[in-house]
Amino acid sequence: MGESKNSGLKIVIVGASAAGLRAASRAKRLMPESLITVIDGEKIISYGACGLPYYLSGDIESPKALRETSWGTLRDPEFFKKVKGLDVRIQTIVTNIDIENKLVSLVNKKTGDAENLQFDKLVLATGATPIMLPGIPADHQRISTFKTVEDAIGWRKKLETGQLERIAIIGSGFIGIELAEAFTTMWDAKVDLIEMENRILPKMLDTDMSFLVEKHLKEQGVQMHKSCRVTAINDMPDGLEIVTDNKIIKTEYAIVGVGVRPRVELAKQMGLKIGEYGGITVNENLQTSHPDVYAAGDCIEVEYFHGKKAVIPLGSLANKQGRAVGDQLAGRKTRFKKVVGSACVKVFDYNVAATGLSETMAAQYGIPTRAVCGTFNDIAHYYPEDKNIFLKLIYNPDTLQIVGFQGVGEGNIVKRVDVLGNLLMNEGCLEDLLDLEFAYSPPYASVLDPLYVLGAAALNQEEGVIAQHSHAESPANELLLDVRTPDEAKNYPIENTIHIPLEELRERVNEVEENEAIKIICSRGTRSAEATRWFVEAGHKNVSYVRGGWFMLNK
Amino acid sequence: MGESKNSGLKIVIVGASAAGLRAASRAKRLMPESLITVIDGEKIISYGACGLPYYLSGDIESPKALRETSWGTLRDPEFFKKVKGLDVRIQTIVTNIDIENKLVSLVNKKTGDAENLQFDKLVLATGATPIMLPGIPADHQRISTFKTVEDAIGWRKKLETGQLERIAIIGSGFIGIELAEAFTTMWDAKVDLIEMENRILPKMLDTDMSFLVEKHLKEQGVQMHKSCRVTAINDMPDGLEIVTDNKIIKTEYAIVGVGVRPRVELAKQMGLKIGEYGGITVNENLQTSHPDVYAAGDCIEVEYFHGKKAVIPLGSLANKQGRAVGDQLAGRKTRFKKVVGSACVKVFDYNVAATGLSETMAAQYGIPTRAVCGTFNDIAHYYPEDKNIFLKLIYNPDTLQIVGFQGVGEGNIVKRVDVLGNLLMNEGCLEDLLDLEFAYSPPYASVLDPLYVLGAAALNQEEGVIAQHSHAESPANELLLDVRTPDEAKNYPIENTIHIPLEELRERVNEVEENEAIKIICSRGTRSAEATRWFVEAGHKNVSYVRGGWFMLNK
Repeated sequence: MGESKNSGLKIVIVGASAAGLRAASRAKRLMPESLITVIDGEKIISYGACGLPYYLSGDIESPKALRETSWGTLRDPEFFKKVKGLDVRIQTIVTNIDIENKLVSLVNKKTGDAENLQFDKLVLATGATPIMLPGIPADHQRISTFKTVEDAIGWRKKLETGQLERIAIIGSGFIGIELAEAFTTMWDAKVDLIEMENRILPKMLDTDMSFLVEKHLKEQGVQMHKSCRVTAINDMPDGLEIVTDNKIIKTEYAIVGVGVRPRVELAKQMGLKIGEYGGITVNENLQTSHPDVYAAGDCIEVEYFHGKKAVIPLGSLANKQGRAVGDQLAGRKTRFKKVVGSACVKVFDYNVAATGLSETMAAQYGIPTRAVCGTFNDIAHYYPEDKNIFLKLIYNPDTLQIVGFQGVGEGNIVKRVDVLGNLLMNEGCLEDLLDLEFAYSPPYASVLDPLYVLGAAALNQEEGVIAQHSHAESPANELLLDVRTPDEAKNYPIENTIHIPLEELRERVNEVEENEAIKIICSRGTRSAEATRWFVEAGHKNVSYVRGGWFMLNK
Repeated sequence: MGESKNSGLKIVIVGASAAGLRAASRAKRLMPESLITVIDGEKIISYGACGLPYYLSGDIESPKALRETSWGTLRDPEFFKKVKGLDVRIQTIVTNIDIENKLVSLVNKKTGDAENLQFDKLVLATGATPIMLPGIPADHQRISTFKTVEDAIGWRKKLETGQLERIAIIGSGFIGIELAEAFTTMWDAKVDLIEMENRILPKMLDTDMSFLVEKHLKEQGVQMHKSCRVTAINDMPDGLEIVTDNKIIKTEYAIVGVGVRPRVELAKQMGLKIGEYGGITVNENLQTSHPDVYAAGDCIEVEYFHGKKAVIPLGSLANKQGRAVGDQLAGRKTRFKKVVGSACVKVFDYNVAATGLSETMAAQYGIPTRAVCGTFNDIAHYYPEDKNIFLKLIYNPDTLQIVGFQGVGEGNIVKRVDVLGNLLMNEGCLEDLLDLEFAYSPPYASVLDPLYVLGAAALNQEEGVIAQHSHAESPANELLLDVRTPDEAKNYPIENTIHIPLEELRERVNEVEENEAIKIICSRGTRSAEATRWFVEAGHKNVSYVRGGWFMLNK
């Protein structure tokens, strides 16, 4: 396997986070005789950065927990020396890389000592930098990004000492949403969440799904400002004035969470190829355009399941890439293949997860889409702890291939995203959803999983039998027909509807004029689908139903 | 698609449970003009039978909940008439099927009325019968099986009125385990659980995994009797005396839950082919040996992912088969392919789930196996609600194909079974585990999923670098080396070990004689794996580690 011939290898890895340290540990395991140096500019390395919002929220007591192994040992340079056999240099800056002579120049930030390190192979695991709004100084006392342990400690101290009662969060991606929750739940701070796009979690969700999350955020007291592009932030005697293109928001502090940018300065300086999305270009072996230089983690471009490239900064991918690079360094053939970009985020009591492309993103890639939605119980509906989930399945109507999947609600969504994500990776199509097998018992699942039901609904839709429409689509001049039970209609009235319970509908289909446009609604989308079919059978031409039903939109 | 040519089709379906009613509803949807009759001997049909133990336990208030749709409508014959357009005959027995003349003879149990029904296509969804021990009369006042709503109501009444304080459950499959929990938690009854095999859940788990579940059952107060074959049950003045081949157990009542047998009397009478495991033989179209007769649900034999046949009575499979039969009746090509047998069961605070074959079952099919285990946090270890799970991955060492997967613990196991089950269906191998993608965020997952870690451990094992041994294997004359931290070793001592913390081991490897046999142990199996590797590097020949570690076995 080539380990032995590489055993005296000198390896330098830039970046002591997930990808870099995983690559280093793996390479050292496979080649105990190799000499591996890992360089990082920060003092604190190898921490669970995704856990920082939960330190801020108080769910995690001390940031030290994020730096410990599961058995409580601190992952500091000494740990990596003793347990992994690695030479980890913290607070150390790479000033130059001479790729021709294979020489890395370092400076220790603390001592000022400079040094040159020879290498046979180099790994860039330089990560990504949070994007700051233009014109805001890096050391602003009231405005910052949120990335490091120090950031989290700083904000928590402000909260603990009562210095912060109101904050604006600019950007409603994962970090923005997690921080909105942290500031609100634990500290009762007043949060203004500002988003440039017309929906929150814009890279993850379409408008219809985003609507459900927004609703939940508002219920929790978060102040939402969508379609607001920040044009300036003015310092005021009592805080900040955030100027957007359609309103001004007054607050005390601001965190900018508008995304990250791959750190590719070193790669550029070395003349490595950079992709169109701004990440380092690598092949399946995670090799850059120079055969002795590998790259992994948030600084690279990966290949999406549909063949296009993207920068997808996720810790889970960085870890896998790190291990693959470790293998490659030892001469193994391990590849890092395509990604589907499965992701999840907790939003107060809601679980939000998605995989593949949203309809919005698919349109950007030129992929045609159609969708089906449904509201489901996440486990057997008669089991006491059942919760609701609103799911959206996106597919390509030309090929019937699955394109993406999104879910929002209090129940178990992540499981479905994980199953569907791995099907997507294998270019799954709608028919494949009917072949999926799920472990079933009432406390854990429904007897037919929602993914099965959605697959069947999509196939029905493609046969032209019945059509769904999103709740986000503007109501046309249609008759809205409510097919819920009399009890439901009485207790949870839906405005401007006529009401015929499903149980009576077979006999009463003729109460609706044959040429009238009908949109049918029920609680979850199951009965309205059935009703739609009957109208179609009875010869109605213009009938559809509200996908996912009424329940989650209004409860 | 052939719907129109079949539209006047007469279809008779025997059995109004999951498979039968799903087939009927689907066929009627696709062929509104068809005439579909569903026949069942029982009075109560279409109930969530898997929910009955949770009615007994009090988690579900009324058995009516098991018969309702998610919007609260009772699924009785009238519902099926009005909403599904089906003619459902309850309390009706099929006395004869004349396949040549396509005639079903019926008798209504209540009225005694007889009738003959003509059919074009017939579906057998006759289900399975619980197996009773020989010599026990069906109407015994203190001994019964557990299958119907009436069974559950009867037992609950006994509990509510204080007539039952002690009960023996014979058989520790799903039903036996669920009943043991129900009787214990809600009613504080004293339960003796009797199992013929040397482990509980014998069809699902191997001995090592079963051990963990047994430990939990004992902690909850369930009295375990393994390797006990019941030879007689004697009526006593004050209850029952259960005689087994190695002990006698005194109790008040007994439930026999030793499995089910496919109901194939009608199929046999019609001369249909029956398979070697006792189920009706069907092809991929769910067609029996007679082309106009289909069969689905617990009465058939399905094809396992590895190509062999089996009877796998699971509600989730019955529902999928039902829909496929509905499609077939309408002339569609929908197939029911292979199954992996993913299943799960709640055992007090433990989640237990598995897919594919256990090592024991694989041996019966002649498939060679090897395994790796690990104890994992089910989500990020620093997130407050993290729980432990003990997982076992089974593979074929000759082909590196995955064979099965089992999990036990308080954390989320079902998700992993669902992902792995669907990989297994596609003949996944160990390398594929490294390509799986999981949505990651600290409240939901670990940054590297346990399935990834197990895949890597198995590949390491196959490279011959390091070997695992099960805790269930008898301890040999080996040095047991504890590599946990000094705090762990002090607070949770493991007997007869020497202790060198992992952090000191690189420097102290030479404290152990090179030719000594060493077995290494830690808390979860991670550090012991790492330590094993170092001993191998240092030239030790006989070193291995305890897979899954010490924690779950002893906590």
